[in-house]
Order: sequence, then structure tokens, then C-alpha cells
Amino acid sequence: MRAGRPEAKGVALRDLVRVAGDGAAEGVEDALAVEEPLEIRVDGETVAVTMRTPGQDADLALGFLFAEGIIAGAADVGSAAHCGRPGEEGYGNVVDVRSAGGRPIDVERVLEGRRWSETTSACGVCGRRSIEGLLERCGRVEVETRLPEALVHRCVERLRQAQPIFARTGGLHAAGLFGADGALLSSAEDVGRHNAVDKAVGALLRRGLAGPGANGSGPALLAVSGRASFEIVQKAAAARVPLVASVSAPSSLAVDLAEKAGIALLGFVREGRLNAYANAWRLVPGRDASGRAPGGGAG
Amino acid sequence: MRAGRPEAKGVALRDLVRVAGDGAAEGVEDALAVEEPLEIRVDGETVAVTMRTPGQDADLALGFLFAEGIIAGAADVGSAAHCGRPGEEGYGNVVDVRSAGGRPIDVERVLEGRRWSETTSACGVCGRRSIEGLLERCGRVEVETRLPEALVHRCVERLRQAQPIFARTGGLHAAGLFGADGALLSSAEDVGRHNAVDKAVGALLRRGLAGPGANGSGPALLAVSGRASFEIVQKAAAARVPLVASVSAPSSLAVDLAEKAGIALLGFVREGRLNAYANAWRLVPGRDASGRAPGGGAG
Repeated sequence: MRAGRPEAKGVALRDLVRVAGDGAAEGVEDALAVEEPLEIRVDGETVAVTMRTPGQDADLALGFLFAEGIIAGAADVGSAAHCGRPGEEGYGNVVDVRSAGGRPIDVERVLEGRRWSETTSACGVCGRRSIEGLLERCGRVEVETRLPEALVHRCVERLRQAQPIFARTGGLHAAGLFGADGALLSSAEDVGRHNAVDKAVGALLRRGLAGPGANGSGPALLAVSGRASFEIVQKAAAARVPLVASVSAPSSLAVDLAEKAGIALLGFVREGRLNAYANAWRLVPGRDASGRAPGGGAG
Repeated sequence: MRAGRPEAKGVALRDLVRVAGDGAAEGVEDALAVEEPLEIRVDGETVAVTMRTPGQDADLALGFLFAEGIIAGAADVGSAAHCGRPGEEGYGNVVDVRSAGGRPIDVERVLEGRRWSETTSACGVCGRRSIEGLLERCGRVEVETRLPEALVHRCVERLRQAQPIFARTGGLHAAGLFGADGALLSSAEDVGRHNAVDKAVGALLRRGLAGPGANGSGPALLAVSGRASFEIVQKAAAARVPLVASVSAPSSLAVDLAEKAGIALLGFVREGRLNAYANAWRLVPGRDASGRAPGGGAG
């Protein structure tokens, strides 16, 4: 394995042969999105290994443990840091999350009964011994939040601008969390779309802007690049985010869960258009002052 | 949860509110890609739960167990079928793979030591207790296969045509396995790109066209829609497929593994252009009779 020449976090340069449309081949160097395994430990015990793009690793660990119900919030956590020392082989690919003094994180309890569900494509379903009760895990998002349609478009556009690695490599997913006023609270890029969401949520947990400490001042909108799968909606439900917007298609189960969880699921949000697949009442119709006049209700 | 109105396998219709560019909103019905959990059992024991698009479930189970090293080939398997009876709740979402007489499938042995790695975004890494030795699992693809550049383009184009559900929903990944003559041997669609690969590989395993029984007559090329991640290359390595082509970007680790595994990794294969990220020697330069003249060597 070549060591590569890391240039910036999340980007690696590799030599390749580029064959043009006329058949001409040339050796060039190009930027690729970095994918590396991250081992997440809780008090020294390995809980998960995920393929991710390095960067915001502590946020990823916090967001993941929160979405999985292993921690209830940042108050459970004393520290989250890479193991070992810089320069050691493998340094940077293991994060150990240490429990806060006097509050041991009971991973055993949470994972009990998950023994045989060791492998899954969707992190949100991991650890379930069977599919029964899959939808029961997420509670309902009870806040009354509604957002103007124009603000949703602005947030999705803003997320696109917050993707420096994607712009260089074409190989990453992005997730952004926005306040009810459209302010970007946190954003992240990753080769895995669920990792991007975990990183964005983890960053807010750390700052007390999501989870139990947020007291209703949590994020209003999760915007994701690409498609909206079940696990994206599940992570939004865990973080009590009332609206989810994606630039592409949702899956059937994402729609079903959003409907049940009280989350507005918006898809194909692009060029001033969108589809509202669930809880369209959370969308306030209307355009920007610069846009065209409202043409109808959205619920 | 709404039951939906399944129309064709893999497609579900849902009501939604469509907001046009002028703000006009209307209620319409649209086709979505189905996402549902599949529980994979071996001799009655749950081994994994994955979110997938229904269809080719037995192939998915075979391909997954093969990629994970739990079965060595179709000869280990006596039967693979849905549990229960049609019409029962949850029917169709559990596949039980039964071992062939006299050859118990030793899941315990394979999963031993994986206890704590229960969750991951990349199926290929699932079950590893730690990241050490991650790259060592896949052997080298030793065949001398080289494919004409024009044939690779034809295969990728052919895969695009073999995506009926994507065409209707915009929400699916696809994978296709091709012979050295460019014949499409198997293809599959799924909400998860790794599931699509598992399905395509599983279909060939069942027919003796991949795995130990193939005797060098296995697939020459794996084509995938979307990006090429580490796990895609890992699955190709497990199935001894010497070339992997994707229409989009690879990750750094996908390139590193392909290089090590002897696999040609081709990205951005579109409109007559491509990038060869690893083992470019497997690509024979040259255009179709209908195309332009070769402009240079590709390795």
C-alpha cells in the first residue's frame, strides 16, 4: 500500500492514468477523498469500526454513540480523543470516549441482545437482533417548528457551498444542521452519509446545542447531499430535528419513518422546486422577496 | 406507518406535495425505491440485518455470506429461502440459508472475536475487532485478464440500461458483472451499493459462475453506479474480479486496496473518458471501429 501524500485533511493525492475522449492517455495526479477506518471505543472497549473520512473524529464518535442510544448527551462524556501519540502507526484512527466521572457508560446494557446483528449497511439498524420493533425505537418530534420554503432552499444552497472536499474530489457526502433562522450551526463531509450526519450532530452535542441540554433551542433542519435513507431520518429523530431536506430521492422507509416521527421529509430540493413526502405542514409556502410570488399552499 | 401500495417489486407509490419552481403546490403520487430490512440467518441463527431493496434476497444472502468469508461458495449451501409463509406479517424480510448436508456452516468460527465490532458503515469491515490487518483479508487477483477500453465503456453503458427501478425512482444503486467478452452475467439494483454487488455476485455463485467452482471462467468486470468505496473493491477481491469500473470517484482506500489486490480500478467512466487509478495495465487502449482512433497507451 502506498503511503500517499496527504495534502489537506480529508484529501489525498494519487497518481492515475487519465484517458481522454479521444483516447489520449496521460499520467496525472488527482485529489481523492480519504477513506480510512475509525475504531470507536468507550472506556477502552471497541464498540464500532466505521469507514470514514478523517476529521471531526471526536464529533463522529459522539454523534454515533448518541444516535445509537449509548450516550444520552454530552454530559455522559468526560473526554473523547485519539488514542496513542502523533507519529505512531495507526494514530488518528482510534477514538476513545471516556465516561464522565461517576457516570459509567453502560455499553453492555445497550448492546445486550445485539450479539448476532453484527453487520449491517445501515448504522441505524445495527445491533438489533431482529427487525421487529425497528420503527419503534425513534420517538416523535413534538416541537411545532415550521420553516419558510425559501429558507429551506437557502439552507440547501448554503450546504453546497460548505463542501470544500467535495468540490476538490467529487467523492463525498455532506450534512448540515441549521437553526430556525437559517443559521448554519454545524456541517460535515464524509465518504459515508451517516457519518456526515453523526459528525454534524456530535459537534452540536459538544456545544450543548443538541440533546437533553438544548432545551428546545436545537437545530430545526438537517440538510443532506444525495439521497435520504431510513438511517438519515432515524438520526434526525434521535436528535429531535423536525425537518430533513435532501437534494435527491428518499426511500420508502425513510418516508414512512418521517411520517411516524413527525418529521417533514423534503426531497429533490433544487432549483426552487421540492417534494414534501411527509408532514408537509411544517413547510410555510412562499418565496423570497427576490423570488416569484407564492403560487399556492404547501400543505 | 402507512402500508403503501406496492406496484412492482422494489417500487412503492407514495402521496406527496410537489412544489414547483413558481411556488405552485399540488398533491401527486410518485414512485419511490423500497427500503426494507432483511434479516439474514444461517441455519436459523441471525447473522446480519441489512437495509435493502426487496428482490434477489437469496442472492443477496449468498453474496453477503461469501464476501464475509462465512461460506466458501454455493457448495456450502443447501437452500436459501424466505422464512414463514406468504401473507404473514414480515414475510419476505427474513432469509434463512441452510447448510448443505454434512457441511455445517461454522458462523461461530468466522465471527469469533468480532463480538464488539457490531456496527459499521462498510459491510466489508464489519465484524473486525480492530482495524489492524484490515487490508490483509483480501488476497491478490492473479488472473492475467486485460480488457479493451471500448468494451469497458460498453459495459458501463449497458449497466445504465439495466436499471429499471432507478429510471422510475432516481433512488437506487446498481452493480453488474460482465464476462471478458462484455456479456452481462448478472446485475442488480439496491438502495445500498454493497447490497447491489452482493446480489450480483450471489446470482453468479448460485449458477457456479463465481467462487471456487468457476475455475477461471468467472466475471472479468464489476461495474457500479456511483462512487467506488473500499468495500466495493473488497467484494470484487473476494469474488476474484480483476477490473472494477465506476461512473464516479473512488476513495483513497479503494485505490490502495485495488493496487494491492491486483485489481484495475477505473473511475469517472463516462462519455468516452475514464481515469485508471490502479493496475492500468489491465486496460487495453483503443476505440471501437465507430470511435475515434487510439490516441495513446493506457498504462
